[in-house]
Amino acid sequence: MGQTAYRTHHAAEVGEGLIGQKVTLAGWVDRRRDHGGVAFIDLRDATGLVQIVIYDEEIARPLRSEYVVQVVGEVRLRPEGNENEHLGTGKVEVVVESLTVLAKSDALPFQVSTALENEAENKLPGEDVRLKYRYLDLRRPQMQRNLKLRSDMTRAARHALEDMDFTEVETPTFIKSTPEGARDFVVPARLVPGSWYALPQSPQLLKQLLMVGGVERYYQLARCYRDEDFRADRQPEFTQLDIEMSYADQEDVMAMAEKVIAAIWKTQGYEVKLPIARITWQEAMDKYGSDKPDLRFGNPIVELTEYFKDTPFHVFQAPYVGAVVFKGGADTPRRQFDAWQEWARQRGAKGLAYVQFSADGVLKGPVAKNLSDAERNGLKEAVGAEDGDAVFFAAGARESSQLLLGAARVEIARRAGLLKPDEFAFTWVVDFPLFKRTDDPDDDDVAVGHSKWTSMHHPFTMPSVDWIDKFDRDPEHAMSDSYDIVCNGEEMGGGSVRIHRTDIQDRVLNVLGIDEAEAQEKFGFLLEAFKYGAPPHAGIALGWDRTVSILAGASSIRDVIAFPKAGGGRDPLTGAPAPISQTQRAETGVDYVPDEED
Amino acid sequence: MGQTAYRTHHAAEVGEGLIGQKVTLAGWVDRRRDHGGVAFIDLRDATGLVQIVIYDEEIARPLRSEYVVQVVGEVRLRPEGNENEHLGTGKVEVVVESLTVLAKSDALPFQVSTALENEAENKLPGEDVRLKYRYLDLRRPQMQRNLKLRSDMTRAARHALEDMDFTEVETPTFIKSTPEGARDFVVPARLVPGSWYALPQSPQLLKQLLMVGGVERYYQLARCYRDEDFRADRQPEFTQLDIEMSYADQEDVMAMAEKVIAAIWKTQGYEVKLPIARITWQEAMDKYGSDKPDLRFGNPIVELTEYFKDTPFHVFQAPYVGAVVFKGGADTPRRQFDAWQEWARQRGAKGLAYVQFSADGVLKGPVAKNLSDAERNGLKEAVGAEDGDAVFFAAGARESSQLLLGAARVEIARRAGLLKPDEFAFTWVVDFPLFKRTDDPDDDDVAVGHSKWTSMHHPFTMPSVDWIDKFDRDPEHAMSDSYDIVCNGEEMGGGSVRIHRTDIQDRVLNVLGIDEAEAQEKFGFLLEAFKYGAPPHAGIALGWDRTVSILAGASSIRDVIAFPKAGGGRDPLTGAPAPISQTQRAETGVDYVPDEED
Repeated sequence: MGQTAYRTHHAAEVGEGLIGQKVTLAGWVDRRRDHGGVAFIDLRDATGLVQIVIYDEEIARPLRSEYVVQVVGEVRLRPEGNENEHLGTGKVEVVVESLTVLAKSDALPFQVSTALENEAENKLPGEDVRLKYRYLDLRRPQMQRNLKLRSDMTRAARHALEDMDFTEVETPTFIKSTPEGARDFVVPARLVPGSWYALPQSPQLLKQLLMVGGVERYYQLARCYRDEDFRADRQPEFTQLDIEMSYADQEDVMAMAEKVIAAIWKTQGYEVKLPIARITWQEAMDKYGSDKPDLRFGNPIVELTEYFKDTPFHVFQAPYVGAVVFKGGADTPRRQFDAWQEWARQRGAKGLAYVQFSADGVLKGPVAKNLSDAERNGLKEAVGAEDGDAVFFAAGARESSQLLLGAARVEIARRAGLLKPDEFAFTWVVDFPLFKRTDDPDDDDVAVGHSKWTSMHHPFTMPSVDWIDKFDRDPEHAMSDSYDIVCNGEEMGGGSVRIHRTDIQDRVLNVLGIDEAEAQEKFGFLLEAFKYGAPPHAGIALGWDRTVSILAGASSIRDVIAFPKAGGGRDPLTGAPAPISQTQRAETGVDYVPDEED
Repeated sequence: MGQTAYRTHHAAEVGEGLIGQKVTLAGWVDRRRDHGGVAFIDLRDATGLVQIVIYDEEIARPLRSEYVVQVVGEVRLRPEGNENEHLGTGKVEVVVESLTVLAKSDALPFQVSTALENEAENKLPGEDVRLKYRYLDLRRPQMQRNLKLRSDMTRAARHALEDMDFTEVETPTFIKSTPEGARDFVVPARLVPGSWYALPQSPQLLKQLLMVGGVERYYQLARCYRDEDFRADRQPEFTQLDIEMSYADQEDVMAMAEKVIAAIWKTQGYEVKLPIARITWQEAMDKYGSDKPDLRFGNPIVELTEYFKDTPFHVFQAPYVGAVVFKGGADTPRRQFDAWQEWARQRGAKGLAYVQFSADGVLKGPVAKNLSDAERNGLKEAVGAEDGDAVFFAAGARESSQLLLGAARVEIARRAGLLKPDEFAFTWVVDFPLFKRTDDPDDDDVAVGHSKWTSMHHPFTMPSVDWIDKFDRDPEHAMSDSYDIVCNGEEMGGGSVRIHRTDIQDRVLNVLGIDEAEAQEKFGFLLEAFKYGAPPHAGIALGWDRTVSILAGASSIRDVIAFPKAGGGRDPLTGAPAPISQTQRAETGVDYVPDEED
């Protein structure tokens, strides 16, 4: 990292090649050991640790953990037997000639020492404390690595996009409120009292305008804002790698995105095998009960609707019956199966029916006795189970049953230790429906329009070619040209071919129940732009916090964000959000009442 | 830029090497000429123009300006005499075999054709119309170049910083309101009714926290927000290239920044000579009447306070008298000198005294008769004028007089055509005062504290070494370790060594009149962080919109921003800002009244 006024070398640079040389180092006192009147201190900087040795008690006495010091000293080989093979600099040490305390430290609210790294998870305080002292939390090697990883990933993505001739364009964050399925954050505009800017939920419309404006290949690492109720692992502001191409179709965008993803993973030494596999949305739902299937392991859902079509068991007399194998689950104690029932109820299901194929071939479990002989006899083969396995069932509406089985499938794998964070299973999910019902109980988005249909992705998604002429006559079955990229059961990103023709856009808005006046008010500027020769275009966005957390193996996106918000959008560090003064409030113009003459 | 579904080649790639080959192109109909039943069309894409030839009238008839078309055709040499040497593809043309209209265009509100580029400045509509149809404005070659230039500059800066081991870290834009000399934009926090986030005026405190957190080299292209009254060339949101280093001093930061600047300018073929020259703030004020002197030309201000110390002319009996030569200005007509008076009055001065040294050596002008013989005789030599020149004077308070003369100096050069946009004169301005008076009439910032002193840069600026012990005893003369980088009379950026010790920070806040309670409320988290071992650090920020506009030779930063705001923060394209619905308002929580029990 180069010399500066305060140092000639970084810690990690101090090696055998410098023996006998004088060096100036600067960093934190990481850990101190005293032995026979001599102080041995691990000095920590951004590159790592190096041991400094202080013979002068006057110099050593005041030094405490996390003091910032500058030392001048000579590099020497450590005495035989004193090497530390766990440390890159473990063969040498620096004998201190002079030392300057650049800054002192009070006693720490929690330890950040590198030496504690392996035990750190246990010793860490609660997250609110970590966030209140985030500047200390960031000193921990794990967080240093996460920040570096994020920077390296960003760099790799940018370089890949630059190599494909993309232009980075910054789009504004003070925009007009547009409907994209969540609440906008809004900012009062003092100079136009009573008026507000909205912060963008994504640069979607702006990047489409860039396409209309002749920027054929656009990208941006864009800050986005969604005012959602707090849920685990959501942040009010987040970053997305936003990409759009004109004169491109779905295949073009997917091929481009694969290059970006491969470049990102390569920074950590992983080769992503291209092309990435694809699965249709329908198959993902049928086999994995998820639109973001985790493919690190198999064990697909088996549909048994046909199998149970004449069943005497009234619970299975349903529009859909499916099952998922619980490998080796036959011997699971009853209380654990009870816990599974509770797990299912917390997800809104009535319970989770199951059978056990015991090792001796006998079918057990509460469901078993309700089945016909034929059903019992053929079941093992029908679901692909073996003796010693259990099987979970769900019956009822197709989608909600599949979602329950999909969740059970992942939970089974999690408990079996199959969800390895350093193994990455990518898939494209393609062939999405264009619309979904607004009354979908599993849907967490807000409907955009006023009909029973809302957009599966967003209102600017192009119907697939076969459906362009008829999507509005059969919204239930209409398909779109859209695609999600999924890794390890997480949605990394998604995109679509966009509508670039006013006539198609008008018809989509009509299905969504957005009338012309409302459309004009909300995004009339986009419809207007389409009148002046809009090229066909398509794009994608990767949720950047999520993507980084997947590659970092972080359990929360908060661990890959320098200064994240805690629950409810609070910042324990600065105390934001906070009340504003009456003067500030008056200046914002939020209380402006127009004159009658206005 | 590579093939996509819609094309095999881009326009600029169509050259003699492709003669006889079939190509598929896509783009806009730029210009059309019909000749003997044959249509010649310039097809425009992101790379440029290529001529396509359509013999089939059925195909050609419907095509209008800015239609988006896809054409398949064979490349051939143009017939002799028909070459266009102004066009890279001017030796060839594409004979169209088939053509698909991908999108039609209504008649345009203004022309964007490349062919009109040279006359474009004159033909452009007013800026509000350009911004309303920004997607059309962006199609103009000048705007395409500006966006590309900005992207290239950003890329060069990033690569330079990456080569110096900087880590890119994203900092939040939902922060706590902190005082930095302008009004904050604020965002109501729905989940904490009655509370607000502020949008950052800069990531200043956050990047200092990153230094405390062990990120030794940080950079970010950061979006910043200042709610200022509208002035020409200000935007409510803007971008800065934000950089901070720990264990670094002023020299380290300046050397690093010079490498970044050189890399940026190199993208356009300019070699910036390093190291960049330096001038002290005092010398810049004395010689150029500006803290951001334009050094593309000389003609410094001459101080005449001593020269006129016994003057009989009461106007010059002032604490300061200075002059600037108006080269060749002796023959300026009286009405133009009157206009100069008006120019000075618009800048808040009473007028602009002047004399003329006519070609025959006679001293003329209204001031001449008020001077003593000795003053008249020595004046030409004292100010460095020659026969044929005029000289402007300013007398009064030192700083306001110097600012007036500095402005006159630039205006003289502007009228003489000396301000060449493709010539770049860089300088560092160093040795700034630490404080300035809050009653400074030339100051456009808002005072941070409640004393007669406010920070020249910001409250986190380190006093220079000589002043650390005594700055609070003599705030008027205290100097700081800060530095601005100036190019062509514009402040590109600035930075400083930061305070990293609580004791010094407390004393600075004390001078500013910020008491402990207020300090705790506003940035207690920073003072708290300094208790846990903060390394010395320093940094810089470049105003990115400004920097791009300087290198682009743009007359306004709005020409290097994809979607800028017009006056008053309005967006003619989307209509932002706009009223929000009652539901939205209720949800923001701005009207929340706490219960008495709260």
